[in-house]
Amino acid sequence: MLQSSPTQPELLPFFAPRGVAVVGASATPGKLGYGVLHNLVHHGYRGSIYPVNPHIATILNLPCFPDIAAVPDPVDLAVIIIAAAGVPAAVAACGRRGIRSVVVLSGGFAETGPEGRQRQDELLAAAREYGIRLIGPNCVGVMNPHSGLDVTFLEQMPDPGYIAFLSQSGGMGGAIADWAKGQGLGLSYFASLGNTVDVTESEIMAWLADDARTSVIALYIEGVPEGREFLRVAAEVGRRKPIVALKAGDTEAGVRAVSSHTANLAGSEAVYNAAFRESGVLVAETIEDLFDIAMGLAYQPPPGGPRVAVLSNAGGPAVVAADALARHGMIVAQPEESLLQALRAALGPAPQLTNPFDLLGAASTAEYEAAARLLLASPCYDAVLVILVPNTAIDLVGVADGLARAAADQPKPVYTCLMGEISIAAGRQRLHHHRLPPYPFPEGAAASMAKAWRWQCCRQMEPPGPALPAGEPTPLRAELRRLAAAGRRALGEADLYPLLGAWGLPVAPALPAASAAEAVAQAGKLGFPVALKAMAPELVHKSDAGGVLLGLQSEAEVVDGYTRLVARVQAGRGGLPVDGVLVQRMASPGIEVLVGMRQDPTFGPTVAVGSGGVYVELIADVALALAPLTPEWAQALVEETRIGRLLRGARGRPPADLAALAALVSRLSILAVELPELAELECNPVLVHPAGNGVTIVDARAILRPPA
Amino acid sequence: MLQSSPTQPELLPFFAPRGVAVVGASATPGKLGYGVLHNLVHHGYRGSIYPVNPHIATILNLPCFPDIAAVPDPVDLAVIIIAAAGVPAAVAACGRRGIRSVVVLSGGFAETGPEGRQRQDELLAAAREYGIRLIGPNCVGVMNPHSGLDVTFLEQMPDPGYIAFLSQSGGMGGAIADWAKGQGLGLSYFASLGNTVDVTESEIMAWLADDARTSVIALYIEGVPEGREFLRVAAEVGRRKPIVALKAGDTEAGVRAVSSHTANLAGSEAVYNAAFRESGVLVAETIEDLFDIAMGLAYQPPPGGPRVAVLSNAGGPAVVAADALARHGMIVAQPEESLLQALRAALGPAPQLTNPFDLLGAASTAEYEAAARLLLASPCYDAVLVILVPNTAIDLVGVADGLARAAADQPKPVYTCLMGEISIAAGRQRLHHHRLPPYPFPEGAAASMAKAWRWQCCRQMEPPGPALPAGEPTPLRAELRRLAAAGRRALGEADLYPLLGAWGLPVAPALPAASAAEAVAQAGKLGFPVALKAMAPELVHKSDAGGVLLGLQSEAEVVDGYTRLVARVQAGRGGLPVDGVLVQRMASPGIEVLVGMRQDPTFGPTVAVGSGGVYVELIADVALALAPLTPEWAQALVEETRIGRLLRGARGRPPADLAALAALVSRLSILAVELPELAELECNPVLVHPAGNGVTIVDARAILRPPA
Repeated sequence: MLQSSPTQPELLPFFAPRGVAVVGASATPGKLGYGVLHNLVHHGYRGSIYPVNPHIATILNLPCFPDIAAVPDPVDLAVIIIAAAGVPAAVAACGRRGIRSVVVLSGGFAETGPEGRQRQDELLAAAREYGIRLIGPNCVGVMNPHSGLDVTFLEQMPDPGYIAFLSQSGGMGGAIADWAKGQGLGLSYFASLGNTVDVTESEIMAWLADDARTSVIALYIEGVPEGREFLRVAAEVGRRKPIVALKAGDTEAGVRAVSSHTANLAGSEAVYNAAFRESGVLVAETIEDLFDIAMGLAYQPPPGGPRVAVLSNAGGPAVVAADALARHGMIVAQPEESLLQALRAALGPAPQLTNPFDLLGAASTAEYEAAARLLLASPCYDAVLVILVPNTAIDLVGVADGLARAAADQPKPVYTCLMGEISIAAGRQRLHHHRLPPYPFPEGAAASMAKAWRWQCCRQMEPPGPALPAGEPTPLRAELRRLAAAGRRALGEADLYPLLGAWGLPVAPALPAASAAEAVAQAGKLGFPVALKAMAPELVHKSDAGGVLLGLQSEAEVVDGYTRLVARVQAGRGGLPVDGVLVQRMASPGIEVLVGMRQDPTFGPTVAVGSGGVYVELIADVALALAPLTPEWAQALVEETRIGRLLRGARGRPPADLAALAALVSRLSILAVELPELAELECNPVLVHPAGNGVTIVDARAILRPPA
Repeated sequence: MLQSSPTQPELLPFFAPRGVAVVGASATPGKLGYGVLHNLVHHGYRGSIYPVNPHIATILNLPCFPDIAAVPDPVDLAVIIIAAAGVPAAVAACGRRGIRSVVVLSGGFAETGPEGRQRQDELLAAAREYGIRLIGPNCVGVMNPHSGLDVTFLEQMPDPGYIAFLSQSGGMGGAIADWAKGQGLGLSYFASLGNTVDVTESEIMAWLADDARTSVIALYIEGVPEGREFLRVAAEVGRRKPIVALKAGDTEAGVRAVSSHTANLAGSEAVYNAAFRESGVLVAETIEDLFDIAMGLAYQPPPGGPRVAVLSNAGGPAVVAADALARHGMIVAQPEESLLQALRAALGPAPQLTNPFDLLGAASTAEYEAAARLLLASPCYDAVLVILVPNTAIDLVGVADGLARAAADQPKPVYTCLMGEISIAAGRQRLHHHRLPPYPFPEGAAASMAKAWRWQCCRQMEPPGPALPAGEPTPLRAELRRLAAAGRRALGEADLYPLLGAWGLPVAPALPAASAAEAVAQAGKLGFPVALKAMAPELVHKSDAGGVLLGLQSEAEVVDGYTRLVARVQAGRGGLPVDGVLVQRMASPGIEVLVGMRQDPTFGPTVAVGSGGVYVELIADVALALAPLTPEWAQALVEETRIGRLLRGARGRPPADLAALAALVSRLSILAVELPELAELECNPVLVHPAGNGVTIVDARAILRPPA
């Protein structure tokens, strides 16, 4: 059950109010308080409209009310566009009038600094006092193009359509409204969220899940403060309706831009990508990409498979389409002989009957329609991408109608690419009318179709498995707290092996030794051969410091090794003392991988796996996921990496113990959830032995979260 | 000296003819022969126009001539649009009439199959006989928007501008003409090249190098049959005028599409990218990207450095711009204190004075102009990207004028992003007028600015060094021919070491042995420790087959090793015989890299370097370049790879002998040029020893080109 479904109708007044009061309405064109009233009056809204302004009698022929208390019924929604200082009182006044839904357009809150942040707290307190739900402040408002409701001051309202667009940036919202109107791309709703003090994108998404007019949810976001709640809702809604997100502020430069213009905490790109992937949110690369993907999914069913037929009247654009499809993982499959025969019978010998199918410049409506019918009916293809280049011979409106006939009453998607600009306006409008998505360039059409196929795959997968056996971390937590209280931040092998062992993870047996004699004794307990590893505070890269000796076979070698190791490391540290050594039984050979976890500020526990060893940064082969993960998802994560191919047994080598590695990753992901005291843990290398022989952690380090 | 410069004016009649004959002119609207005449008459051409058609008296009020012989002077150019069968004779008739420049629009040549290919040969023979230069066949023709010359049958001719667009696809050309006209993006010339039997893009590029109206050359290409000639011209022209290319047919699907619709041989994406990079050709990722990059370079100077100031009236789009700039390697640098003070003095305290600089929604023309002036004058920045989001407060035309004033008389580029569609038409037109490139989205503006900076960097670099000391490959060639004549295709270590050694490359000394006793003797000559490697026909992955033993220290170990090795490999090969072993002196330790060469069908010899070892495919860390390379360029190539960072001395390790590796790569690149008999050679691993200790080739294999 979703938190805010239509049966909990508290968001309804924002998008379908019976009456709207505009607090701060103005009679002066050019002022924002005029713009809002103008839009309410002129964009088709049929409910009651109440301008509120104590200094004016009428605006746009509507009687003006001196204050919100004087506004008659019905009034479900108030829009506030007055100077920031007066906004908290105005919200309280709305509450006293019995209005429970307020959009605050005014800026001057948390985005401006400490004083504004305090004002924002007052605003929120006023809303809470009266049980008011609030969108904004510092936003451009809300639109419902189907009903004509427009409480923004933007000039353009897009046509009614099937995409709900939620934007954390008002400027982006305004630009997109103008662009979408020009493109003929319709929206079901538009909401600018501003500083998001109360109503969040998660709530609106949940509410949109059951909205019949909305087929797709498109998001522009710079950060999601409650990351896990967002993902929970997204995973639930996104199975029924595609959610496409453009996440801005991904780079360091972008993060700085975000943090100085909103109050959201920006997460790193890799974590956002992992989070979105796991919850089935489609990631857009650019602004155009966001609406390209949304349009395809809003107009057409997703492809049931990756095989695409390209149907064109021009060679070059068809080549570009084939390239782009292949680059995005789709298959430009060749036709079977029976389909070829049918195409030849319908089209004659002239057109090129390999995929891409080139009907040549003079292609007729009948040819396009016949070819599209055959391709859609064929088991060879899951989708058809039609390319239309204007010329004197082609009737674009006619072809659009023909394609609509071919696409009707069958389940496969038809995307179109209508190139050009001057000669295509009528054709584009007709394609929109038929819900045949018209892309201006082949690359956008191909990328969007691939994303739609990805959505179709994602929605069929089980979620990454939240209900895992947890284990009992209490003793580990006590130990971590003891270490943190003792001022420890960085933990090394000697600290971690007991903890990891207690959590059931396979560590190479190891014992500390403070002298050569003790090292010999410990080696005797462990059994030869052994490794010696120097222990010293802040000694992070032991190997680089010459602090590791491997494969010592005898007591004599241990004595000799101990002396050499301590001398070498001490010399390298300018005479600083060494705490002694860790004596470790040599593990049997295996492939070196890295397994780690980290607490992300936005999404909480994450887990990573990839190529291990000394040159992890160079090899750059790590896949990331949110914790926890089932062993199945953990194995899928491993298989995203290049080392994953090697572990499966590349080049005729025996396969490694992937199952044991997946179990380790899964188990560590649970630890990440259960022990947030561990800010960061990296096991590297973990040796993956041949299948059936398990894995061994042979080095580890961690960072503790400072005590609260 | 370029091959075809304006002092060799033979291409001039194509773009600036004094008179044009249209062979196949039609009086029937909708026919292509009518479209061409219509465009010549109505798009502003001021020269003489001669329709040629024996069946008609006048077309569009022009007297029609029964044949080309009857056409009076002046006539420099003939356009042929008749059925394919008659084209060769029509070309010959043009020749007899003294016309030396012909555009053949008709299709029905090599693109249709063997019969068409023969007709194309006849066509070319006719042209050659009369010294005719020919564009086409199977093309849509040529435009010069500055003079109004339009010999295409397309509906739209773009406005006059600064970008010359050459297209190997007529359909692409037509779509782009329509789109550019709608966008207000001007062109200096438009040429559709069709089957390119005579005049090539290389020749037109060379001719455009000195054309005052052309600032940028934009190419849509599917293949360049004479790859090296194309690169030679591109490298020479591209230093003076940017060349931007979209290469289609990069993927397998795309290649198939290309090869079935033109006659060009498609090269692999990696080779094209290397070739373009070395010759300074900018690579566009998409069709939009092609014109985005071209527009920026056509309107504005390239940035002299990577530091960009973003100036905006909306936060979200500015964040997206900052992300995109950073992703493309530009720097969103922060202002110095003195600049901040100047900005504060000019703008007051309200706007956000960190980069991106947010002037807020109500930004005035004066604020945009003042801020742009200060940012352009500051030593902190190399370029300014201005973002404009329409709203009721902003005067887009006024801001365009203000930005033009700020940008005038100073050397740094100003790019703009004008979002929206409905409300921006006048602003966009004004920005075009001022040559301030208006991009519809921030990502395109950022990517294009980064490409312009890249062009600025490339043009300042020395070319990769063709004039290298060659050496004398004659003895090697003789040996390779002997092997090829003996039916050998795959060569192994034993074949290659003598050849590589003779070419002065550092190979680990090695000697063959056919028995255990002989192996011991050879080891004695080489000195211990040694490696043994099994030799057998078609034994490619020796290590995988257990065919390598390393570090044998004594005669006894060699005897024992020989027996084990032969038995193991023979067993693995189902009892097939083993030729014996190669005894090799163990090289001192080093980092494993791969160095290879390959003959590319389009661009000839190429060289590659990257991470070596057994798992080359998994590590996927190889950089590619055209041969030959100077040692300096070879070192730059190494540094493109991840292993390059390791070789420089990552993580406090001593640096490896990069200079010796670069010398090896360079020397091998010369071999690739000098010995085309070697289709493919891979040295892997090459051990790179610590700096000063050189490199050693410890394994190699090659493929011979079959004898001609």
